[in-house]
Amino acid sequence: MGYQEKKDLVLREIKQSMDMINAEEAEKMVHMICAAEQVFVVGVGRVLLMMKAFVKRLNHLGISANYVGAVNEPAITERDVLIVGSGSGESVVPLEIMKIAKCYQAKIIHIGSNQHSSMRPYEDLFVRIPCSTKLHQEDEIESEQIMSSLFEQSLLLLGDAAAMMIAEEKEIKDIHALWKMHANLE
Amino acid sequence: MGYQEKKDLVLREIKQSMDMINAEEAEKMVHMICAAEQVFVVGVGRVLLMMKAFVKRLNHLGISANYVGAVNEPAITERDVLIVGSGSGESVVPLEIMKIAKCYQAKIIHIGSNQHSSMRPYEDLFVRIPCSTKLHQEDEIESEQIMSSLFEQSLLLLGDAAAMMIAEEKEIKDIHALWKMHANLE
Amino acid sequence: MGYQEKKDLVLREIKQSMDMINAEEAEKMVHMICAAEQVFVVGVGRVLLMMKAFVKRLNHLGISANYVGAVNEPAITERDVLIVGSGSGESVVPLEIMKIAKCYQAKIIHIGSNQHSSMRPYEDLFVRIPCSTKLHQEDEIESEQIMSSLFEQSLLLLGDAAAMMIAEEKEIKDIHALWKMHANLE
Amino acid sequence: MGYQEKKDLVLREIKQSMDMINAEEAEKMVHMICAAEQVFVVGVGRVLLMMKAFVKRLNHLGISANYVGAVNEPAITERDVLIVGSGSGESVVPLEIMKIAKCYQAKIIHIGSNQHSSMRPYEDLFVRIPCSTKLHQEDEIESEQIMSSLFEQSLLLLGDAAAMMIAEEKEIKDIHALWKMHANLE
Repeated sequence: MGYQEKKDLVLREIKQSMDMINAEEAEKMVHMICAAEQVFVVGVGRVLLMMKAFVKRLNHLGISANYVGAVNEPAITERDVLIVGSGSGESVVPLEIMKIAKCYQAKIIHIGSNQHSSMRPYEDLFVRIPCSTKLHQEDEIESEQIMSSLFEQSLLLLGDAAAMMIAEEKEIKDIHALWKMHANLE
Repeated sequence: MGYQEKKDLVLREIKQSMDMINAEEAEKMVHMICAAEQVFVVGVGRVLLMMKAFVKRLNHLGISANYVGAVNEPAITERDVLIVGSGSGESVVPLEIMKIAKCYQAKIIHIGSNQHSSMRPYEDLFVRIPCSTKLHQEDEIESEQIMSSLFEQSLLLLGDAAAMMIAEEKEIKDIHALWKMHANLE
Repeated sequence: MGYQEKKDLVLREIKQSMDMINAEEAEKMVHMICAAEQVFVVGVGRVLLMMKAFVKRLNHLGISANYVGAVNEPAITERDVLIVGSGSGESVVPLEIMKIAKCYQAKIIHIGSNQHSSMRPYEDLFVRIPCSTKLHQEDEIESEQIMSSLFEQSLLLLGDAAAMMIAEEKEIKDIHALWKMHANLE
Repeated sequence: MGYQEKKDLVLREIKQSMDMINAEEAEKMVHMICAAEQVFVVGVGRVLLMMKAFVKRLNHLGISANYVGAVNEPAITERDVLIVGSGSGESVVPLEIMKIAKCYQAKIIHIGSNQHSSMRPYEDLFVRIPCSTKLHQEDEIESEQIMSSLFEQSLLLLGDAAAMMIAEEKEIKDIHALWKMHANLE
């Protein structure tokens, strides 16, 4: 029941999951983000929290990013990217938002596990994190963690790896200088 | 117990409260907002919700506004304004944020009821909504509504009146054209 | 351009709108809320902010209430009520949530302006605030305020009037004692 | 610049950080959470997002948990626990909240990096994640990631490991049955 055992389980699963992410897909995502005028994210529950953490970091990197529903959310246009986080690819709200974004001709990135989801027809890029979904497909990691924890953890780490790739693509050399973009009131 | 009676009570109190707001203070607030590079707001509970509604409208009017704690909150500078909503002027968190903003030489507007609060030394402008606070001062409206409802209602209406004043100051003639600034994904 | 003129406009429109709300509908809403095990709310933008203010007050009154998407959102059941705020009754996300809630046999209250919306088939109760929508129907108040401000203001006031009605229905005599239910950390 | 290199860096740092967390401290935290009537969390920025993810999971496990500032935040009492996430232990807002919670005699857990912070006098338990802070202490991991990413990642993983420990302590055998506690509207 101790911390050691649980921590080792988490580290082992995360390594497995991060190693299985396709590098090309991650790199394509980075290029699409750097080419966009604005980045929007959508998701539900803990997935949305991880997407918001990514949005926060993108803003530190000088990329205009926001989540759908924010108080200062601007209108989306064909020069923007919407990133949808959804393991199963079947969450109703993100799917509906995705369809609307497609009408405005925004580019769509879906980060998920299920590659045969209802989101497929609307995606410009699918980045796969092969965690177990409730659908129990063959090529997934069968996580022993609670609910979709492994997907959410992988999503955070993928975002943080992507943030470092973006810093390089944008040739930001002094990472410590980024603190000047950081909120300073709390 | 019916709707009629309660609705009449609310309308009567709101009229009293809005009529007692000093027009000059409201107009000064509008000028300070229009002169700022960025607007930040802070508050707690239902007061914060009303401040967020104001932030949303300011963005529609082309003013860069955000709340303290937002995922894309930028750094505050001496060219910005912080608006603090606090009836009593004694809420700990807003007071601390106010002090930090002052260090960065931002302008401070306090919208509150109590004119002798701990926030006083940090304010560049105090806009008074004379609702009852827990302090029971003499020159306040003794509201019969639950808790600070009257303050929160007045705050929303003050913000919406200010929004119209800002639209005029910025010579935005076609208010319907503002919909193009509006979020379009939900 | 001054505060006086704008404030009078707001007060006039609010009075008109609140007076036109059907008292029976408001009273039915109060009964449904008091009979529910849990209350959920959904909406977008400023409407959601007003719904959250209502949720906050319901919790002070001892009613278990939350918004869809909250970190501690429980599962909805047939003993619960979902309140949807949407002027036009056509917002995609609230409409989808409404359909899901209906599948779980929850009761549905819609507070809106347009009485012929796509939400109609799912509603157990429609509470009408007759403000102008983008649809320009005949029996609406043509507001001179920015966007849907009048609907949002009326929504807040309706919620606050309903809160007082609920306090009476639940025979809460000492309204000041409610402060002990109030968050005490900020 | 590729994904492989960045992903390996993240995995290496996370393993280092998670391995250095003191198991006893983590286990004490689990006991304190299980013994509490309610759990509150506070933090700022990305740290708060990770704390919210923990709150969400605690609720799935049947533990009443919320974040400071939530719309349905109850009053804190001496039977509750406040968990403060702050690497440096110097963030003004969490520090102020901590002091107030102490006045109500709630138990305080601080998860941070700096063990000589201003939060020290108020803590009942300090759980250390030894990541680099801006203070550059000797016994810290010097992360190559952007800003405090390593602290935030470790916080999420610590919370998820703790969630599994709590499930065991509460003898929840069928983890899949937890889905019935999960929000079902989105």
